[in-house]
Amino acid sequence: MSALTLVPETKVLAIASHVTYGYVGNTMATFVLQLLGCEVSAINTVHYSNHTAYKQIKGTKTSAEQIAELFEGLKQSHLDDFDVLLSGYIPSAEGVATVGKIGRELRLRSMMNPGSFFWVMDPVMGDEGRLYIPEDEVPVYRSLLREADLILPNQFEVELLSESTINSISDLTQAVEKLHREYQIPHIIITSLRLKDGDLSTLTSARTTPSHTPPPSTVSSTMTIVGSTAKSDHTPRLFRIDIPAIPCFFSGTGDMFAALTVARLREAVAHAEPAITNTARWQSPDEVPATELPLAKSTEKVLASMQAVLAKTYETMEVEMAAWDQGINREQGIREEGKADKERHLAKMKASEVRLIRNQEDLRNPPHLEKFKARAVEMEEIEAMKLGV
Amino acid sequence: MSALTLVPETKVLAIASHVTYGYVGNTMATFVLQLLGCEVSAINTVHYSNHTAYKQIKGTKTSAEQIAELFEGLKQSHLDDFDVLLSGYIPSAEGVATVGKIGRELRLRSMMNPGSFFWVMDPVMGDEGRLYIPEDEVPVYRSLLREADLILPNQFEVELLSESTINSISDLTQAVEKLHREYQIPHIIITSLRLKDGDLSTLTSARTTPSHTPPPSTVSSTMTIVGSTAKSDHTPRLFRIDIPAIPCFFSGTGDMFAALTVARLREAVAHAEPAITNTARWQSPDEVPATELPLAKSTEKVLASMQAVLAKTYETMEVEMAAWDQGINREQGIREEGKADKERHLAKMKASEVRLIRNQEDLRNPPHLEKFKARAVEMEEIEAMKLGV
Repeated sequence: MSALTLVPETKVLAIASHVTYGYVGNTMATFVLQLLGCEVSAINTVHYSNHTAYKQIKGTKTSAEQIAELFEGLKQSHLDDFDVLLSGYIPSAEGVATVGKIGRELRLRSMMNPGSFFWVMDPVMGDEGRLYIPEDEVPVYRSLLREADLILPNQFEVELLSESTINSISDLTQAVEKLHREYQIPHIIITSLRLKDGDLSTLTSARTTPSHTPPPSTVSSTMTIVGSTAKSDHTPRLFRIDIPAIPCFFSGTGDMFAALTVARLREAVAHAEPAITNTARWQSPDEVPATELPLAKSTEKVLASMQAVLAKTYETMEVEMAAWDQGINREQGIREEGKADKERHLAKMKASEVRLIRNQEDLRNPPHLEKFKARAVEMEEIEAMKLGV
Repeated sequence: MSALTLVPETKVLAIASHVTYGYVGNTMATFVLQLLGCEVSAINTVHYSNHTAYKQIKGTKTSAEQIAELFEGLKQSHLDDFDVLLSGYIPSAEGVATVGKIGRELRLRSMMNPGSFFWVMDPVMGDEGRLYIPEDEVPVYRSLLREADLILPNQFEVELLSESTINSISDLTQAVEKLHREYQIPHIIITSLRLKDGDLSTLTSARTTPSHTPPPSTVSSTMTIVGSTAKSDHTPRLFRIDIPAIPCFFSGTGDMFAALTVARLREAVAHAEPAITNTARWQSPDEVPATELPLAKSTEKVLASMQAVLAKTYETMEVEMAAWDQGINREQGIREEGKADKERHLAKMKASEVRLIRNQEDLRNPPHLEKFKARAVEMEEIEAMKLGV
């Protein structure tokens, strides 16, 4: 069945960055959502020529006032009947506060119709220990957590939000529980986890296919995505999906994940048994096990699509860079060393732009879905896994 | 065969407006192009909450300097290898001049590889006698005409560009010939023509299916699209396609036409016999008749897609407005007359937003293509049709 038949009509307000070239932020999310049948109203928080990993950009930021003004424009013409808010990169604390106001307003208005508004917050703050927003933005994000229905932090962002350090799955579980309990966030997905090998292999040994265990003492070739929908007592229902890690950094994959998740979660919720479309915050009854959660079902499709597109991106990138390197070898004599490094970096960034458009069929029909089955993370298993044990 | 198989990889630089809600300018063009497999780099000339026909908007314009800066950003990272420039609404004369510089630069760089760059210019200036740009923009557009490979004016814009008045097909032919000859524009499509009944029915009587002739002395229910690719001596090769006019104004249809045309023309050129992909300005040899032009072939597909999507948009709009009117009747007593008019206008604008997303299959596979066959406009026929004769 096509995505259009599966995904119900959905109006998404998407607040994130815009780049002229390439695919990050709203430039990524808009197409992904539209292809899967969602109406997208984009408020762009920056207008840049390209993403920042190129290490040089031109363009402008949108001020908090300009964000507020665009939303005012929608309101005055009754164009603000959104089902979902998807918020991503926002370059200032004032901007985050403004988006917070928008989110609260949409939430308030939906109070009479449970389930009619859902906020997917991608708290874009940094990665791998490095913050790439002003420091005063972090507490503003924390103050908005209660408003979000689903957050999509990476490992570093979970640490920032839960004010804890994560070295093990056990730490992670505690952080997720804290976010469920303290901030009442019903749904959480940690989008990329690379824990210490010890812990990863402990968990991996519980897999039904232990032959996939990565060789010890090498850089892990597996990436783990962990998700949870809280039970009514705020305890987590954790599931995990392990995917082969592609040995390359692609920009915009977080935005791709977020956009696919909006569409696929909406689909999974619409087809859930028992029905939860009109349940506040799309929270499944307690008896639904982790692996049967709409959140788990949607993540399976999301990852199947992403893996297919990114594998193809990686393949094309390698071909292009091989060609580039051959060219550069010919010209090596006439190039300064420093310049060549910079030029190669630019070429690599360009070659690594996600091949979204020509592989759109993989978004529509996630291939090899059976390889991305969610597995439950058992609490006993976690208890046994104290760090270093 | 799917659009992705048919449309070759194409990198499009799209310079036009952006709206948060609804589908006009780049907000329309980007999705249409991407869906048909083209990579789109968007430079947004305004950032508005909604399109201007709502009669109230909020947001900002992009200055000419900001447009230039974004393009500089692309250049410094070698991200400016575009196959096509699609230019639409630009809110100032300086902006048009800046886009002109960008177009010239891309053109110059492609000189060694004929056919490797193509500029589709939608000279958005006004409609039905009303200018909606500053007056000083018109001569700047005229000064850029020599750079364009395909222009997509409506009837009013042809008059502005050719500095003539068009009351008949004969006038129109002269204007097209002038543009071909004086400005050396190889391809022209006039996207909407509503001539006086006399002329239309004269031409219509030449149709193979005269039963479709609209009843005389009523408002014409047919819309005519006329296109031409110049021969080497700059004489026009005119074709026409008549479509049933939908009795409603939709914003963004010009942008939809332009975006579909970029993808479908690229496709038609790639499959043309004899091959013209590497021919300067994709100009077919003189022996190719009007109806066999890639421009004619692509326009057939464009109109088939548009007609399907707009017919569905019209249908949904009627249902929504009927529901709105029922609601308003109930509340009529408590509403001031003026306020109700404004509210109805806003509701109608919203209900008339093109239903692009949920009908994307009609873009991918143009339905009832056989109903949109291009017919040649014979020169003798035109000669016989002096106005009022």
